[in-house]
Amino acid sequence: MKRSLISACLDQVDKKVKVAGWVNSLRSHGQVSFIDLRDRSGLIQVFVPQKLNNLKNESVISITGTVKARQAKNYNPSLPTGKIEILADKVEVLSLASDLPFDIQKPDLSVSLPVMLDYRAASLRHAKTRHIFEVQATITQVFRQFLLERDFTEFHAPTLVATATEGGSQVFGVDYFDYRAFLAQSPQFYKQIMVSIFERVFTVSHAYRAEPSVTTRHLTEYVGLDAEMGFIDSWKDVYLMADSLVKAIFKTVADRHADILAEYQVAVPKTASVTPVVKLSEAQEIIFKRTKRDIRGQPDMDPEGEREICRWAEEKHGSQMVFITHFPTKKRPWYTAPDPSSPDETLSFDLIACGVEWITGGQRINNYKTLVSNIKKMGANPKDFYIPYLQAFEYGMPPEGGFCLGLERITQNILGLENVRQATLYPRDMERIDARLSQIGHKISSKKAKK
Amino acid sequence: MKRSLISACLDQVDKKVKVAGWVNSLRSHGQVSFIDLRDRSGLIQVFVPQKLNNLKNESVISITGTVKARQAKNYNPSLPTGKIEILADKVEVLSLASDLPFDIQKPDLSVSLPVMLDYRAASLRHAKTRHIFEVQATITQVFRQFLLERDFTEFHAPTLVATATEGGSQVFGVDYFDYRAFLAQSPQFYKQIMVSIFERVFTVSHAYRAEPSVTTRHLTEYVGLDAEMGFIDSWKDVYLMADSLVKAIFKTVADRHADILAEYQVAVPKTASVTPVVKLSEAQEIIFKRTKRDIRGQPDMDPEGEREICRWAEEKHGSQMVFITHFPTKKRPWYTAPDPSSPDETLSFDLIACGVEWITGGQRINNYKTLVSNIKKMGANPKDFYIPYLQAFEYGMPPEGGFCLGLERITQNILGLENVRQATLYPRDMERIDARLSQIGHKISSKKAKK
Repeated sequence: MKRSLISACLDQVDKKVKVAGWVNSLRSHGQVSFIDLRDRSGLIQVFVPQKLNNLKNESVISITGTVKARQAKNYNPSLPTGKIEILADKVEVLSLASDLPFDIQKPDLSVSLPVMLDYRAASLRHAKTRHIFEVQATITQVFRQFLLERDFTEFHAPTLVATATEGGSQVFGVDYFDYRAFLAQSPQFYKQIMVSIFERVFTVSHAYRAEPSVTTRHLTEYVGLDAEMGFIDSWKDVYLMADSLVKAIFKTVADRHADILAEYQVAVPKTASVTPVVKLSEAQEIIFKRTKRDIRGQPDMDPEGEREICRWAEEKHGSQMVFITHFPTKKRPWYTAPDPSSPDETLSFDLIACGVEWITGGQRINNYKTLVSNIKKMGANPKDFYIPYLQAFEYGMPPEGGFCLGLERITQNILGLENVRQATLYPRDMERIDARLSQIGHKISSKKAKK
Repeated sequence: MKRSLISACLDQVDKKVKVAGWVNSLRSHGQVSFIDLRDRSGLIQVFVPQKLNNLKNESVISITGTVKARQAKNYNPSLPTGKIEILADKVEVLSLASDLPFDIQKPDLSVSLPVMLDYRAASLRHAKTRHIFEVQATITQVFRQFLLERDFTEFHAPTLVATATEGGSQVFGVDYFDYRAFLAQSPQFYKQIMVSIFERVFTVSHAYRAEPSVTTRHLTEYVGLDAEMGFIDSWKDVYLMADSLVKAIFKTVADRHADILAEYQVAVPKTASVTPVVKLSEAQEIIFKRTKRDIRGQPDMDPEGEREICRWAEEKHGSQMVFITHFPTKKRPWYTAPDPSSPDETLSFDLIACGVEWITGGQRINNYKTLVSNIKKMGANPKDFYIPYLQAFEYGMPPEGGFCLGLERITQNILGLENVRQATLYPRDMERIDARLSQIGHKISSKKAKK
């Protein structure tokens, strides 16, 4: 007999079915038992006319039985299958579970982060935790679908790179046969190159940052959603694309996962048809006027500034998100396009929503000679950037720009999670790769680590 | 004025347009010039009533002008836009190109592989080369869409791992702060764990193999298309899913890219409604009977055997693809499920088509104690596998199995490319990360390399 999904039992009253799943919970009353069985489609109550010993929660079983309508007084309004149950003929154990380290039945998984991660195979089964990754899968899908519909081509950027070009100190070194290689900090160079091939491209790619700090917002390995587009008429094309994309993500998440948003007691950020766009210097001025807190002249927003400018955007424009633009040329990477009318500022933007950064992007320099000159200015050798990067510009590159979203970060932001690790299946940081490194790691000599 | 795509000019006869793209070719006749302009949508001829000096091929330009119908005698049947051209009012140069290292106009890019890779930003612009990656993008899309429609959940597996669990010799080491980490050779463990959370999962993930050999079929970094499914009624569910998936890929590639398949003078493999399934030992017997070549008792097929069994499958079953199953338990990984009726053979399969392997997969062991015992049998310590892997089995794991396709390999196979590097944007091997390592690499001491 073929297995049916639990959700399909609703149409099978008085019929024989075979269902299979995890024992979500088990209650024995004398010689009979009630199982709440869980599969990917939902939960159903199973009545078993026998005592079930040693069947711990999360054990995997298969049930053959008959779907029965419950009496009205026994309806369970909290379950979509609450008006039916299965009367089991046969219970087959497919995999016995050991005792769980904590209770995963409660609406909230109230364990510390280290415990949650030490027992990740258990914590991920907790419904509210699992839902985080359903939202995350949707975000990735919307990202791709939105861009495919706009003629973007998907590509795969390599992550093993030959030089630590984007910033030497925070890069992981790899022993690559007799050579030293590095893990890419982003697919930035490759997505720009790809503009010279396909005009509009995107990639969902792993990126690595050797940041020697353990904060709530940093991972050493993360998934980047990167897009880049050529033949822009103006850099506005870039932030308007990012704006439409993020609104599409919000809309689909709100439509498809209303129940999960309710469970997390959050709503997607409120947007306006026109998202406000303010220069960094203007934003600092606005904040000064509103709060007397003076961050004017700073090269970036601070967290309190990000929160305040979002309050302003909501009050003045009915939008909980706002683009901050024109970050100083000195503080943005050397390939960022300066504003021709104000060369100390760049055509760059951050999308801030509900007080935190969601997207970063901007126009890039597409002129080969300017790039060579900028590389020299920072004291590096253009030869180190020729293959694969500068070569693409030497053969003709359209005006272009792009943006990037951190997948775990955007998931964290949408669900209002305290720590980005909650939005990461198996987070990596300085102290942990699955298990705690202090417990399982192969320590390398400090001399070697410094190389 | 907003840029129009070249393909949209067909509806714009006698209207003003602005188009932008690359100079695919330029012919000057006295004081007038003809440009073949290329953008992501196609090519169009542009007539410029002036001489254009110093405008090399691949330069990026913007043209403002009027779309004109050509006289019938000037139709170009080889172009979709061959009945129109643009009479340019204004030519704006957006990016000047240098001389290309080779001619990218010819139908075939006849340069050696090292030259193709040394000048990858140029070779990727060659139309036939670019098309490889259009097919590749389609393969990835079909893989995901097919599985999403069948209730699979997408997840992202980490690639930094703490132990070289799958095979110590071919793994890259990473300096991870004060510890030693490794690059994952596959998302195998994580996709199995995810079965315990979502039942059916897939991931498009980078994987790394430190194979110290330079062949036409191996890359050190590749993209794996991995799927895994729980609650299988039998391992047949797994290979039948792989079978339907690969047929869906063939169908979409054939429908969407008929022109590219014609350009490569290939067809997707011929399939039958029921793909033949033969055990390894049966396949070897068939080969012996047909050819008198005796590979009976060998633990795997050899390349000639793979070709011969495909010839047999086509002759007997009208299918150019065939599943080879029941590889020896000794030769498959320790987590592979043995056949209960013949424990020296595994419930594993390879899909062979047109003489080469396309997919590998099988049922896995879902019993915690059996896994622990198998780990001990190979002389390893189960503790090293507990987090993250064994933990998921300790808490209840359904019967499950899965399969994997190498994205570059399947692209190579479909287009009949000689070398897998042709199907890789920026291939990595022992000798090259973009540039040749002997030219740019940071050589590490042999002492360190041996660690």
